[in-house]
Formats: sequence, C-alpha cells, structure tokens
Amino acid sequence: MSGSLALPTDISDVVARALAEDVGGGDATAALIEPAQRATAELRVREEAVLCGSPWFDDVFRQVDPAIAVSWHYADGAALEDNVTVCTVAGPARAILTGERTAINFLQTLSGTATAVQRFVAALGHTRTRLLDTRKTLPGLRSAQKYAVRCGGGLNHRQGLFDAILIKENHIAACGGSIAAAVERARSLSPSLPLEVEVENLAQLHEALQTQADRLLLDDFTPEQLREAVALRDAHAGARKELEASGGIDIANVRAIAEAGVDYISIGGLTKHVRAIDFSLRFV
Amino acid sequence: MSGSLALPTDISDVVARALAEDVGGGDATAALIEPAQRATAELRVREEAVLCGSPWFDDVFRQVDPAIAVSWHYADGAALEDNVTVCTVAGPARAILTGERTAINFLQTLSGTATAVQRFVAALGHTRTRLLDTRKTLPGLRSAQKYAVRCGGGLNHRQGLFDAILIKENHIAACGGSIAAAVERARSLSPSLPLEVEVENLAQLHEALQTQADRLLLDDFTPEQLREAVALRDAHAGARKELEASGGIDIANVRAIAEAGVDYISIGGLTKHVRAIDFSLRFV
Amino acid sequence: MSGSLALPTDISDVVARALAEDVGGGDATAALIEPAQRATAELRVREEAVLCGSPWFDDVFRQVDPAIAVSWHYADGAALEDNVTVCTVAGPARAILTGERTAINFLQTLSGTATAVQRFVAALGHTRTRLLDTRKTLPGLRSAQKYAVRCGGGLNHRQGLFDAILIKENHIAACGGSIAAAVERARSLSPSLPLEVEVENLAQLHEALQTQADRLLLDDFTPEQLREAVALRDAHAGARKELEASGGIDIANVRAIAEAGVDYISIGGLTKHVRAIDFSLRFV
Amino acid sequence: MSGSLALPTDISDVVARALAEDVGGGDATAALIEPAQRATAELRVREEAVLCGSPWFDDVFRQVDPAIAVSWHYADGAALEDNVTVCTVAGPARAILTGERTAINFLQTLSGTATAVQRFVAALGHTRTRLLDTRKTLPGLRSAQKYAVRCGGGLNHRQGLFDAILIKENHIAACGGSIAAAVERARSLSPSLPLEVEVENLAQLHEALQTQADRLLLDDFTPEQLREAVALRDAHAGARKELEASGGIDIANVRAIAEAGVDYISIGGLTKHVRAIDFSLRFV
Amino acid sequence: MSGSLALPTDISDVVARALAEDVGGGDATAALIEPAQRATAELRVREEAVLCGSPWFDDVFRQVDPAIAVSWHYADGAALEDNVTVCTVAGPARAILTGERTAINFLQTLSGTATAVQRFVAALGHTRTRLLDTRKTLPGLRSAQKYAVRCGGGLNHRQGLFDAILIKENHIAACGGSIAAAVERARSLSPSLPLEVEVENLAQLHEALQTQADRLLLDDFTPEQLREAVALRDAHAGARKELEASGGIDIANVRAIAEAGVDYISIGGLTKHVRAIDFSLRFV
Amino acid sequence: MSGSLALPTDISDVVARALAEDVGGGDATAALIEPAQRATAELRVREEAVLCGSPWFDDVFRQVDPAIAVSWHYADGAALEDNVTVCTVAGPARAILTGERTAINFLQTLSGTATAVQRFVAALGHTRTRLLDTRKTLPGLRSAQKYAVRCGGGLNHRQGLFDAILIKENHIAACGGSIAAAVERARSLSPSLPLEVEVENLAQLHEALQTQADRLLLDDFTPEQLREAVALRDAHAGARKELEASGGIDIANVRAIAEAGVDYISIGGLTKHVRAIDFSLRFV
Repeated sequence: MSGSLALPTDISDVVARALAEDVGGGDATAALIEPAQRATAELRVREEAVLCGSPWFDDVFRQVDPAIAVSWHYADGAALEDNVTVCTVAGPARAILTGERTAINFLQTLSGTATAVQRFVAALGHTRTRLLDTRKTLPGLRSAQKYAVRCGGGLNHRQGLFDAILIKENHIAACGGSIAAAVERARSLSPSLPLEVEVENLAQLHEALQTQADRLLLDDFTPEQLREAVALRDAHAGARKELEASGGIDIANVRAIAEAGVDYISIGGLTKHVRAIDFSLRFV
Repeated sequence: MSGSLALPTDISDVVARALAEDVGGGDATAALIEPAQRATAELRVREEAVLCGSPWFDDVFRQVDPAIAVSWHYADGAALEDNVTVCTVAGPARAILTGERTAINFLQTLSGTATAVQRFVAALGHTRTRLLDTRKTLPGLRSAQKYAVRCGGGLNHRQGLFDAILIKENHIAACGGSIAAAVERARSLSPSLPLEVEVENLAQLHEALQTQADRLLLDDFTPEQLREAVALRDAHAGARKELEASGGIDIANVRAIAEAGVDYISIGGLTKHVRAIDFSLRFV
Repeated sequence: MSGSLALPTDISDVVARALAEDVGGGDATAALIEPAQRATAELRVREEAVLCGSPWFDDVFRQVDPAIAVSWHYADGAALEDNVTVCTVAGPARAILTGERTAINFLQTLSGTATAVQRFVAALGHTRTRLLDTRKTLPGLRSAQKYAVRCGGGLNHRQGLFDAILIKENHIAACGGSIAAAVERARSLSPSLPLEVEVENLAQLHEALQTQADRLLLDDFTPEQLREAVALRDAHAGARKELEASGGIDIANVRAIAEAGVDYISIGGLTKHVRAIDFSLRFV
Repeated sequence: MSGSLALPTDISDVVARALAEDVGGGDATAALIEPAQRATAELRVREEAVLCGSPWFDDVFRQVDPAIAVSWHYADGAALEDNVTVCTVAGPARAILTGERTAINFLQTLSGTATAVQRFVAALGHTRTRLLDTRKTLPGLRSAQKYAVRCGGGLNHRQGLFDAILIKENHIAACGGSIAAAVERARSLSPSLPLEVEVENLAQLHEALQTQADRLLLDDFTPEQLREAVALRDAHAGARKELEASGGIDIANVRAIAEAGVDYISIGGLTKHVRAIDFSLRFV
Repeated sequence: MSGSLALPTDISDVVARALAEDVGGGDATAALIEPAQRATAELRVREEAVLCGSPWFDDVFRQVDPAIAVSWHYADGAALEDNVTVCTVAGPARAILTGERTAINFLQTLSGTATAVQRFVAALGHTRTRLLDTRKTLPGLRSAQKYAVRCGGGLNHRQGLFDAILIKENHIAACGGSIAAAVERARSLSPSLPLEVEVENLAQLHEALQTQADRLLLDDFTPEQLREAVALRDAHAGARKELEASGGIDIANVRAIAEAGVDYISIGGLTKHVRAIDFSLRFV
Repeated sequence: MSGSLALPTDISDVVARALAEDVGGGDATAALIEPAQRATAELRVREEAVLCGSPWFDDVFRQVDPAIAVSWHYADGAALEDNVTVCTVAGPARAILTGERTAINFLQTLSGTATAVQRFVAALGHTRTRLLDTRKTLPGLRSAQKYAVRCGGGLNHRQGLFDAILIKENHIAACGGSIAAAVERARSLSPSLPLEVEVENLAQLHEALQTQADRLLLDDFTPEQLREAVALRDAHAGARKELEASGGIDIANVRAIAEAGVDYISIGGLTKHVRAIDFSLRFV
C-alpha cells in the first residue's frame, strides 16, 4: 500500500518499559481522581515542528487504559505550525493523567529528531543526495529514532551490526591489510547482506572499486576530494558503487558536500543530539 | 544498499527465548565434552529447498559461544539442491552440540515457509500478480515468518494490527453500515496508515471505490467475479485502488485467480502450515 | 487431582509476546468500534480435529480485556466433529476483534499438533508402545507443543537439554569411545537426572545394557533389528532398561515398529511439521 | 524415565534475574583477579539438610562463564550430613567469585524448603496421607519452591490460579449460595481442569459430595470433624472424592490430622517461611 | 522531601512476574464471579509486626484491575498491633480475588523481614552502631528486601557486586598477597565506588588502615578483638575508616558486639531467613 | 560508605536492550577479526565535559565478553579537559569492536546530561538553592539520566509517579476544588510518600501552607512573586515547607530565580534536550 512509513515492531515493548519506569508501583496521585470521571484533552504544540511519534503516544494510552480514544488532526511527518491542536484525547480522566507525561516524552523526543532531520533535508535543496542516519542513537530508542528520521525525510543506514556489513580500518588490518581479502571473506560469511567499505583516501577508494562492495564510505573527505572520488567512481568500469560521505558535516556545509555529487551523506548528530519539541496537553 | 532482505529487529530476543526453552538450566549432557575440545561440522540439507533462517542460526551459536564461526556457502533465498553442504560451523565442540538443535529448528521451520512460498510464486508464472502473506502465523514467530515469505519471493501484508487499517464487516456495521463513514473515521484516527477495506460483493466494491481507501480486499470471489471487479476498478475515475483476492486459494487455482487481473493474492496457508525442511549437522 | 493435563507455566508470557507482535502499538482498526459495544461470538471448527490450546485462547482474551468471558463446550483433548461450536466468547466487541486472530493462531497451531499425534496413537492400536515427541519444535512454543502432544495422547520426551541426559556418539567419543565411561561420568555430574544412551547397533546395545542408563535409544533400527534388541534386553540380568526407537518412522510403518516390542517410539515430525486446523469466530 | 523430579522450565529466566540484581553493571571487585587464573572450590554444608537447587546453582555458573564445571557428589533430594562436600566447582577464578553468592542464595533457600518439607513428611509416618504445598510462596520463586517441595517428599497443589479450580466461599456466594451451581458453571467454563471445593462444615461437605468436584478442601476442621468427614465421604455412593485438610496445622499436630484419614494435608508454612541452610564455598 | 523510604524502581517488573506465575493463563475460578460485581475487603494482620510492602500490594491490584482502590491506615515502617485493619480494598470482586494471594505474598514476606530487622535494631539499644543487611537475599527480591530492611530501621550494605568494592581474601591473594596493591588497583579500575576490605586479624587491619579503603570488614572477631580493632583504628592518623563486624552474630550477642564500638554490624540472617507475617483479607 | 553516587539497579537490563538493538542477530562484520586477536584501545574525549556513564560502558563490554578489562583514569562526575584519555579498554579485538558503539552511545548521552546540569549548577553560584530534574526524560533512560543529574551536581525530583505525590490543578478540581481536601485524601491513600502541591498564585500558596504537604511547587512565578512566596512561607507558623520554582527557567535567568530564596529549581530541559559529548575509541 502506498505512503506507509513502516512502523517499528517493538513499539509496545518500548512503551511498556517507559511506562514501567514512570508508573512503577502505581500513580500515587491519580488515586485522587474518581475512577468514573471522564475528560477530554487537547494536545498543542508550542513551536513549529515536524510531527513524529503518534503510534507510541497512542500505545501509551492504550496500555494505561484501552478506553482512551485519541483522534489525530495531523499525521506523522506533517509540518506543524506553532500552537495548532495536534490531537484530542478522550476517556477516563485518571488514566489520561497517568499516561500524559510518558506519552508526551515520546512525542517531544521523536518530533525533535524529525524536525532536525527535516532541516538538513531542506538544506540539501534539489541535489540528488540523500540524507542518512547512523548508529549514534539514544540507547533503547534505535528503531524509534530511525522511524523519526524517515518522518523527517531522511533514509536509514543499517539498523545495527546485524543487517549490513561495514568494513573499517581495523577489519582490513585483520585481513592482512587487503581490502580485497576483507570484502571477499565478508561476502562468504554473509552472502546476502549489503556490504560497505570505509576508505580514507583516493588510493583506498581505487582498491575498493575493484571489489564486490555495494557502497563506499568516504570519511572526512573535503568537498574537493569528494568530487575527485565521484569522478573516479564514474570512470570505473563494472557495477556502479554508491558513495557515502561522513564526518564533520553540519547544517552549514551539508549543501556543499552534496553538490560534490555523492549519493549519501550520513550525520551522527541527527540522532545523538536531541532538542525536544514543546507539547502540552490541556483538559477542555 | 541493493539486495537486502530487511532483517527483523527481534532476532536476538527470539533466539534467546528459544535457547532458554531448550537449554534452560544448562546442557546436562554437554558437560561430558572437554571445554577445550574444538570441532568442525557441516550442515547438509536432505531435500530441495529455499534456504531461510541463516541470521537466526548464526545468532544461536553466537549466544551459546561467540567463539563459534559459521561460514555460509549459500545466502538466504537461494535454491538449495538435495544434499549440498549449506554452511560450516567451527569452534568449541561442547558449544556446537548445545546450540545444534535450536539452530536447526529455526532453519528447518523458516526454510519450510520460504520453500512453500516459492512454490506458489512459481505457480503465478508471468502474471503481474504478487503473493502476500497474512496474520495467520505461528505465535512468537511473526517477523521471522514474514522474512521467510520475502526469501521465498512473496511480499508482506501488514505486520499486525498496528501498521495498517483493514476494515471488515464488523467495523462497517459499527459505523452504521456505511463503508464511506468507516473509511472517513479511520482516516482521521490514523492519518498516516495504509487503509484497506474488505468487500464481499460488487455492490460493496462500487461503494468502496468512492472512498479514500488505498486497497480493496475481495474475499471469496470466483475468478469470474474477480474479473468483473477488476473491470469495475479500471472504469472508476480517481486514484487507482489496488485489488487483493483472498479465501480458498491453493496451489491448483492460484494461477487462475491471478489471471483475473488482481494486484495481490493473500494466502494464510503460507505461514499457518509448516512442512519443515530436513537439515543435519555432522562433525567432520 | 485426576485427569489434569499439567498446564505449562509460561502461558501468559507466550501469549503476551504473541499479542505484542500482532497488536504492537495498538489495533488501528478497532478504534472504529464504540468502546461500549458488546458482542457474543461463536467459535466453530471447520474439520475433524483434536482440540488443543484453550488456556492460551482464554489468556489472549484475558490480557486484551478481562471483561471478556469464554465458555467452552469441549475440553482440550476432546475429538471435535466438523462444524461444531467449540466455545462462546462474550464481552466488549472491540476487544474481541483485537484478540481474535492471536487467539485462533494458538488454537489452530496446537490443535494441529494434537490431531497429528492422535493419528499416530491410533495407528499404534493395542500395542503397549507409547508415542514420544522430540526437541524438534517450533522455536518459542516448546512447552505449548509438548502440552499438545499430551492432549493428542502422546507422552513427552525431555523438555530440553536440562532435564535429562541423552548420550550420543559425540559424547561417547569424547569419553574415549567408552559407553561405560560416558555413563559413569554423566551420572556423577548430574546424579538425579534420567539418563538415556543412543546406540547404533547390537554391539553397542550390549555394552550399554551393562551401565546405569535408564533407557536406550535405538536409532534407525529395522523392525527385525528392534526385535533382536528387545530379546537382548529381556535376556539381560539386572534392572530392566527401557527401549526407544527413532528415525524414519511414519504413519505407514509405526505399527510394525511398535510390534517389535519397544517401549517407546519418538517422532520429530509430530512437532516440526504443522497442519493448522481451520477455526472461525463469528459474531451472533 | 524413572526417578525424575520434573524440573521447572523457567530456571534460566529466574537465574538471569537473580544475576542481574547482584551483578548489575558488573562485578567491580572481580576485576582484581587475572582473567586467566583458574581455581577449584568445594561447596560444604554446615548442618544436616535435604539438598535442593543444584540445577539453579549449575545455571548460575553456566551463565557467568560456561567454562566452569560443577561435579555433584549428591543429587537433589539427598539427605546431607553436616560438613560433607556437596559438589566441586572448577574453572576461571574470577567467574567463580562473581557467581558464588547468587548460586548459594538459590541453594540455601531451596534446601531450606526441602528440609522443612522432609520434616513434615517424616512426621506423617506410615499414614497414607500426602503432604501438599499452597500458593503462599516467595514472589518470583513459585516453580522453584514447588520443585523443592517435591525434593523434600511432598506433592504439589496447583501451580497457580490457572491450572486447577478451587471454589471458595466468595465464589459460591456469587452463584447464589449454591455449591452445585458453582461446580456446574465452573465445569462448563473449564471442562478439563481439576476441580476442588472448599467446605466449612459437614453440611456443606454433604452438598459438595453430590457434585462433580474431584476433591474437597476441609478448612480448619478438628481431627474429630475430619474423621466424620472421612466417614461421610466413604458412605457416599458415586465417584470417590479426595479429601484435603488445611488450616492451623503444624509439626505437632500433623500426625493426628493425618490419622483422621484425609488424603492430603496442605500447609502454607512450608513455602512462606524460610530457614536457609548454611553452605560455604572454599577455594582448595 | 523528608521522610521518604526511597522506593525500588523495579516494583512493577517484580509484581508482573509474581502475577504471571500465579495467574498464568487466567484465574480459572474467578470466572464464576459476575464481571460487574463490586466488593470491599479489609486486610487484617494476625500478629504484631512492622508493616512493609504496601507499594507492591498496591501494584498487584493496579495491574490486575486499575479500578481497584486501596486505602491505607498505616504506612510502611509502622508498628502494627495484633488484629488491626491495615488497609481497605474496594473494586470489582473478581479482580480482588484474582490479586489477593499475590498481593498478600508480598506483604507477608516483606513485613517478615522488616519485623526481624526491627527486633535487631531494638536490641542495639542506644549504641551508635548501625545494622546492615548483606547480599544473602531471596533470589529476585533483592531490592524489595533491602527496602524492607530500611522499613525495619536498618541500613543497606551494597545492592550487589556493581555498586561497591569489597576486597576479600581471594582478591588479595590475586594481587600477590598485598592489601595495599589490591586497594590501589581497585581504586584505579573504579575511581568512584565505595571501597571496603575484609580483614581477618589485627595485623591485616593494621595494613588496611594505611590504604585508601573507606571501610574495613572485621569477620568473625570476638567482642574483645573488636574493641582492640576500634582502638587501633582510633589511634591511626589519617582519614577515619569505618569498621563493620560480621559473622556469627545473633539476637543474643548483637548488643555486646555493638558495645565494642564498631560502626556497623551486618547480618545475613536478616534476609536469608523469612518468618512470614500472617495477614488475611476478608470481604465486608 | 562515603562518596557513592548511588547506582541505578537496572543497568544490566538497559545495557542488554541497547546491545540487542545494535547487535541483534550478531555483528556481521566482526567475524572478519580472528577470535584470538587481542587489542588495547584508548577512549578520548574531544571537548570539555563532565564524565558520566562509566558503569554502563563497563557493562556493555562485560556483556559482550567478560574477558575485556576497562581501566578508568577518571571517575563519574569528574570534569574532563579536552582531549584527555578517559579510560583504557583491553581484551579480544573482535568483542571490543562489537561493543564500541553501544558503549560510547551511553557515555556520550549521559555525559551530555551531566555537563548540561553542571553548567546550571555553576550558574547558581553560592546561593543555597538546589537544582532538580523532572520527569521529562528520554523514554527508557529515566534512572540513567537521573544518575547523570547527580553526577552533574543536581538533585533528583521523584523517580516517577510511584514514589512521591504531586498534586496538580486537575487533582484539586477532582476533590471539589479544595487543596486541603486533596492533601488529606492523598495522605491517607499513601501515608509514607513525600507530598508536594503545585500552586499557581499566592492565594493558593496561602491555602497550601495550612496543609500537611511537604513541599510546594510554584509554577511560572516571576522572581518578584517568588520573593513574596518565600516571605509568606517564612511568616507561616508550623512545619517549614520547602518551595520549588519551575517553568520558563533557563541559563540566563536561573540565578535571579535562585536569589529569590526558593529551596529548589526544577528544569525539564536538563533531561529532555541532549547535546551528546564527543568521545572516540582508538586502538593503540
């Protein structure tokens, strides 16, 4: 079906743990609210942002009390203007109060990531370069943050160490210093995984272009070096290898890097830094 | 990167539980083997099959002892001939024996699913119809079986109740019998999820074509009815909706269903029945 | 108390995981149903089968909403005729729809196993031989499938590597090729566990009869060899050892194997293959 | 196979949690020991006891380091004299020190229970009455303590609320005060579970004898009342119902209760109180 | 804020596991109670005790059904007289019955520990010596029992191996027999953890007083030896080290040990033995 | 013992989940490194920071391979200068590479929080006001972030909803608008928990001062209003209540708020925003 953002499969586990650490042995204050009291609340955003995290928000309330209904006015990935009502939450008042903070914690964190990603994507302008995340993530929130990257318009690099091969300097050294030997051995150990090699200069790039690698990671190359790397790749006969730039890239220089012609730019800061978005939930 | 089959993210959890139920409080027999003894073993397949499950197999041995190395001669999705050596396992003999059964249990189950799927895909021949799985899966193995479906050449329907909307008879009844009302309400509750509606006859199909649904599920239609449904859809102005056939489809009639022109065929039997593939591991 | 089938202790864990993979971050479609709507539904079976899995089915609905009540017309282990109503489910409509697929997935899988087992047990006729399962199970469903074997009239072999010793060729080799040495060492490491030895010919059987083993596993013996093995065992002075046949046994030859006089027959196919039983739940 | 004590299936989970709470983020002191240093240690008991817990003890060390070998000189259920060497632990010194306390915590707790049970069993002498445990257990150790009861010579009552029906006063009141109605309804809800009814006097016993209950629980009856109850039961036509006495039973009066002729005596104190057995592990 | 007893953070996990083992696949008997029936029950204590465990008790009922309300008449740490009403439980009758046993199991176990601790604290009289627990705890209940120790008026020693260093004989031997070397190395590996050294005689105490250790553990010293140890410590220039006595201490000699002037006394029996307190819940 | 920062008890769980999401079914690239190869690596910090997270870092490597040793040159809470070597990691090269990213992810996130907290604490200068965190945390990292707050010199507000009462507007409304009634009811429900009330103006402050609350939260008060609040509190007879300011506080105005004389200032931004610290691990 069209348009799906491919939800992570561990939402309910991640939500259960977040609720456990907040609710623990029960909400000692919520007991003041009568069990039968019902309420409706509106969630507002207090700044411009890209929305992300609605399935976690939904699931927090579902786990606290399935009688709570959430109606969304915007979908994940939507650009929110300041002060709009994002969704409406209706149901038992006690349960809404118990879930409120945990639900918003997900939304403010993931919308923060999506918003940061969208800023970088906008900076790329009309280049063909795509933005990638990294494995520099908040522990326990890997799949959620990778979903937020997609909501912001980025693409995901590998989920973790298990679903793609990335051969770095230490791996090459362990194979006698030969990129070719490292690629060949990795290919036989895991015949069906994507395979990328990190290179540190044009000589290594030349060597890596001869191998069966799918993609080459150019670490800490200047825009000028990147242009040479793209030319070298384009001149190489055989299957076209993708090129990915990383290292020292920020909002100020990302456009220049992209214009050097690389296929991908990966940035750790997208997921390791977080500027939470300000949301508030008010009873109406 | 090209060619990746998109590994599930819960492999290590699923493997840890499988090991727990087999190894529990320890392998009471393995203690007979000296800790220092090393061994090499070959895994053979005893019948033709589509290989599936190597990441689970790898992870079983990694969890039992990270000193075990597995080298694969085939990738997941490969067509195996009878009696070939599929991989080689080398490391501490005691640990290989402890992990053997659990590792093979994953491989025999998932290769069974991939092989069954491949048989159906082959039966579809050169039609443009794609094969889908369902939510009729072995409890606890949902993401693993969905990966096996991809290895066999099929596509995945939704992962579960959380990542797509499928409106059935009971949901429509709850919205006053109106397909239009049900679709509209579902869209506002979950603005970014794919949305499918199940229809039971051509009149309902006609009604559903007017909505914002992405796909329509034609349950228990005959090939003749399916042809009419396709014609009705093609004649409808507006965004093209995908059509999916399900119900009573087996290896004998799947080609005829496909030739009626539907976009998808979904079959529960792909994942609810299992004919395990015969593998054996022998020390060399 | 009489007649209990000894329920596994991990039902709620296994059910929680199955619900997590299906419901994940919430049932996106069930939100169409009003929270207050109640319903009654009947579960029917669409073929002859041995019922198995009612405690998992119950627990799925209990975890989704404790207000759902399930009334059973048959007990686990009962032979169901085609098309009978097996149980009635009553409670909140939304929750019934959310739990339906997961609940049936357990029932169709476990009844499939119980039904297959019952067919083998019937084939054994009036011989004194008992049918055993193996460790060739669906990962994550070990204790559930072993319960299904009991429901079908079979007995359980060991749960896993931890609750009985089974000495095979590799273990014997590690003890210098001596069955006696292997048995003696295993006995001192785990003084209270049942102890079985796999033998591959009559000479090994002879050697194993001299040890403290409780049972001997005769792998891939012909019926004729099995009869000799039984005679050898009967002629041996000292504590009577049980004999178990395994390897290459199917519904066609199981009776002949049994008539050779062995105490047990173990068959991997009981639990590694699954032909799910067809159940459907309809609102009334 | 003969003689097995039926190990719980959750040993590795329970051990993993116990290790997590003790080892948490690592053994800060063990780092003083060289990784390569090996050691042999002997476990001694410092008082007379019934041994229980060896599979948990084994599993603690296996999880800490699979290179540790444990050789047992006694089996679970054995009567240990003061000061004997119970087992020998050999392997990496660092790992032995890390696992020592957790391993002994299991052994001292479970041997404490087995020893207490054995004292009650001895007090029963040659009566035919069997000793049962209850659901008054240490949270998280239910299956382990029930195994300890078996090691001490007792039998297990139900594991929990899920595997047997026990109808008490409140349940009867909810069925209009009718024992017959309560039993009939329970039977249809759970056709295959054992069914017991608690009765508080001889009139209720008379009523319960007419039902399909499997067993009757006589709460707080005097020995004289128990004798009358046994006579009433014996005089009743139809399937013989088992009788179980509970309430206010201790080591001083348990023999008198048994001699009244009941089939079972259940005692909460077996598992709710713990007098740990004194074990110590010394390097040799 | 003043007066808090610092609740453990794993209450909901520990409660979830305890419920899982008792409720498993559902409360087969509670189904007799109408879902809509409500009840109020009173919890009474049947002996004098120190109350402990109310957050676990609360959480059991919250997890079973959030509609249950518990009102406490006493706080954890309070001295309860025999037969007082400790709290009132109100809500759905079915859910109260399902949670009753698990809730009381926590209360009876933890109040047992708090009560035992309070007895020892009372025996210390007006000495300045403080009572400590140890790592000899019930597996899985470490943090709960340590909370109970605080409720009874004791202090906690380290939570486990991870949050403090305790250098014993084997660690010293591994550092060439030098206490100074062991302390120095431990300090560099974990610069911010508290550091304690176990000494077995006055010569070792003298050596340990020269190091950077924070506290010294005097194992199996007589009161006379302890007095000498205190004098030696007081005479030592440099940062004052705390002294802790352990080994062979019971209610009869604890006062004499304290009067020798040590800062702390640690006693394994506080948490390894349990005499459960008798509570009962009655519908009113 | 002196100086301990009170480690969270869930470190190993949090680390296990972080490793699971990164390592999943195994490190596909690490297999290139020979199992026997050993390495030593140094961790450097690339900017000034407050160190935090060493127990998580240690535990990542311990879980990956217990043969890895980490030696620290600084303790958690230490002020690191740019480019110093923070610790040394030695052991099997393969395992070091597998754990590297997850270990650093913890360190960069938690040091980021500790560093931000330290900046605010420095801004408070010599006032007596203490800095508090809130429940606005990264889901799943609550206890870790609260530890980081302590490392940075802050204090912790409540862990979650379970260990303290915080009565807000909605709770007061549910008790008929009476602060006194709300406090009284909360006190009886949870007699031993700390109790705080949020007030929005001086009139509410006056009312709250009459109750048994331990602390009063002054939300969005100006410095001038805060001074009046402090004066009002000081003039009130009876037990002195603590005052806490929150809302709209940043590094620019925190000193002015503190000088108004409140006891505490709580700031959500300490834990909801993260600026990760830059660390790198290099083989030497």
